[in-house]
Amino acid sequence: MWTLRVRRVRSCFSCSRGCSSAPADRLELLRSFLQLCVDRYYVSPGETNSDLFQRGLSCSYGPLGTELRRNLLEQWWHSVTRDRGQVFGISTLNISQEQAGLRVVECEHVKQILDQQKSKEELIQEIQLLLQRSPAVRTNLLTGALQQFVPSLELVNRKLPFGLAETGLCFQPSSASGCSAEITQTSLVWFCSPRTSSQWLDHWTRQRLKWWKKFALSPSDFSSSEVPEQELEDAASRGVRILYRFPWGSETLETLWNRGNAELLREHKGARSKLQCRDGQKSVPHVVSISGNMDRGVMAFLSNSLQQLSREEGRQKLQQRKVLKLHPVLAPVKVALNIGRGPTVELRQVCGGLLQEFLEAKIFTWPGYLETVQTSAEQQSAKYDEMGVLFSVLISENTLENGLVQVRSRDTTIRETMHISELRNFLSRYISAAENI
Amino acid sequence: MWTLRVRRVRSCFSCSRGCSSAPADRLELLRSFLQLCVDRYYVSPGETNSDLFQRGLSCSYGPLGTELRRNLLEQWWHSVTRDRGQVFGISTLNISQEQAGLRVVECEHVKQILDQQKSKEELIQEIQLLLQRSPAVRTNLLTGALQQFVPSLELVNRKLPFGLAETGLCFQPSSASGCSAEITQTSLVWFCSPRTSSQWLDHWTRQRLKWWKKFALSPSDFSSSEVPEQELEDAASRGVRILYRFPWGSETLETLWNRGNAELLREHKGARSKLQCRDGQKSVPHVVSISGNMDRGVMAFLSNSLQQLSREEGRQKLQQRKVLKLHPVLAPVKVALNIGRGPTVELRQVCGGLLQEFLEAKIFTWPGYLETVQTSAEQQSAKYDEMGVLFSVLISENTLENGLVQVRSRDTTIRETMHISELRNFLSRYISAAENI
Repeated sequence: MWTLRVRRVRSCFSCSRGCSSAPADRLELLRSFLQLCVDRYYVSPGETNSDLFQRGLSCSYGPLGTELRRNLLEQWWHSVTRDRGQVFGISTLNISQEQAGLRVVECEHVKQILDQQKSKEELIQEIQLLLQRSPAVRTNLLTGALQQFVPSLELVNRKLPFGLAETGLCFQPSSASGCSAEITQTSLVWFCSPRTSSQWLDHWTRQRLKWWKKFALSPSDFSSSEVPEQELEDAASRGVRILYRFPWGSETLETLWNRGNAELLREHKGARSKLQCRDGQKSVPHVVSISGNMDRGVMAFLSNSLQQLSREEGRQKLQQRKVLKLHPVLAPVKVALNIGRGPTVELRQVCGGLLQEFLEAKIFTWPGYLETVQTSAEQQSAKYDEMGVLFSVLISENTLENGLVQVRSRDTTIRETMHISELRNFLSRYISAAENI
Repeated sequence: MWTLRVRRVRSCFSCSRGCSSAPADRLELLRSFLQLCVDRYYVSPGETNSDLFQRGLSCSYGPLGTELRRNLLEQWWHSVTRDRGQVFGISTLNISQEQAGLRVVECEHVKQILDQQKSKEELIQEIQLLLQRSPAVRTNLLTGALQQFVPSLELVNRKLPFGLAETGLCFQPSSASGCSAEITQTSLVWFCSPRTSSQWLDHWTRQRLKWWKKFALSPSDFSSSEVPEQELEDAASRGVRILYRFPWGSETLETLWNRGNAELLREHKGARSKLQCRDGQKSVPHVVSISGNMDRGVMAFLSNSLQQLSREEGRQKLQQRKVLKLHPVLAPVKVALNIGRGPTVELRQVCGGLLQEFLEAKIFTWPGYLETVQTSAEQQSAKYDEMGVLFSVLISENTLENGLVQVRSRDTTIRETMHISELRNFLSRYISAAENI
């Protein structure tokens, strides 16, 4: 039987509302989720690594996780930079000569200082000097954008509003645990006239929430929430968080702040005339910052798209099926190629040709036909479902005769017969249709 | 006169062979090149920044430089990962618990230690302990790939050859100048059987050189050269450099090493059985590493594509024209939209519609119609040529009547008339045709 009859959704990872599960259950959920991410090449093995991933920090990703994050960043970039031609991409430095925070020092230099036969006072002085000279690593992308405000202002002929977009690595100062971490951040810094900043904050909150929901299987798990007054950052007059409800609790994916212009003024040493815009009042613009954590974004979409289904087979046998129903645009592997019965050498040749064709068309393809371990069709489908592979194609001796292949869909589990020459167009159209919804 | 008659190439930036120019000339060349990069939004202003750029290090990029590097990285990724489905993308951590090199320390922690009333010996001990606990930042992408070898081996069923690709930020230990720097690196680490490693090194050298030349206006400035024996890295038995001949001297863009398996064994503490592959002899694979500096790549393509032409106008007037003839795939701005004579409000509306359409089709568009400073058509073309804008479109009252627009090509300087509805297809086809050559 090719199709899978879903009896009932036993535990849908993406809707935690219904499940008033005990903490132990939730821990088990988390554990099995992490295991799947490791087994299916999203996250590299290792306990420390899983721990980083789970905390919403950068971890070492496997090939599928790498591609998923690439897709996510690409979509983010496309969505913010296409906004009316008023958003410009920038790329600023990670290291700077700032005064505080995390510094990069060379071990050897410190050792040299410590090895010298000097007095305690001289030692302290030399280390302080070394620290001062050492570059700082960035902890956010905001500062870079504020610094780029003046040259960008020329670019837009001093006209508001406009935005500067950037994605990149940021470091996080060590917490109590004493261990620094890194995060892949996205940042849009929006400069607008003071009287419109609150409206822009609302605008961007709507836009960003819409964006997250667009790729979700269960959009209601994404929500926004106003930051309570007592938690506002220094300069900010208002803040909004975009949250994702994981089965084990809500976490922040993105934060929007209405920051006023104090930081902008400080960054440019109060040189108001350089910062003024042509908005009638010659005012110094206000800043709305939108910064996201795309490592946690990866985890949110993985968690959101994981469906666990079960079906009865015979009397006692209860079969479980896990499917990673990632949005077609985000799913790393669009198609897997496999061979069935028939002359292996010829079938592999056909697969090789298809693989080349798909990869040239930028369709990420999984070379399942290179696998030498024998597995049943059922086992293979189960594996691909857990990987979130959109379609799997079976090439068999039939294909050599009449050019027909079998295409199985992840989402419907239905197998269709199709001519081999139609495959590429079918896949391209399917993905771009999903993109434009 | 719309077309520009080129009289002779006075100083072609991309062919330095012919120019036996004096050092002072070369310095002037470099200075004017850097100025153009800053003026045309490739590199952010500031002397320190230009200095970083010039040294082939990461700098703060403007919107066009950001897009150019994005395009370059995208092309690199596509070119290596499509190779027969045997290359997998990975993403490893920047910070690690390695023993040497650059460390990230928190200023506050050091200050706390220095402020304590302790003996010199205790002080030294505490600082050493802090250093030990502090994470190191990576200086290359090789180590991460070697660490990911074992899980990747499972993925390919222990079959050679295969590769792991990654792009990302690396830090460079401070040289004599005492200042650390960052570089955007690309890395392909190729695992193959010992007896084929030298052939693979040749294969990848050919592939990589072909790739660089593909996007060049003057391909002969890119070359490869065997690393002399006395300059070989520790573990390596052979090395090849891919060089670019800048007008002011040759620089390395990419380096390929045949590294043997010593580092792989060291990284996995000599556990041979974990590393062995199914190639008949159960050998530990050899490593061919290919690592590139994409910041220098950006500079190479900018330098390579800059043409300086001059024409005579009347008797004495010698006009100079600089054109950044970046490859259509790399050029950041594919099209600029401008308005001519006619009702401004209506014309801007037409431009706004086109902008939206192009951006949705992922065609980077320059909103020239938003500029309020009046410039002549000549001045505008000159500016776009220096930006490397492929096409500029003029929307005028004519367009409102019959839908016709004027399209000027950067490379031919010819103006064509076209119907507005054909524009998007024309641009998409032009770019993809250039991509598939």
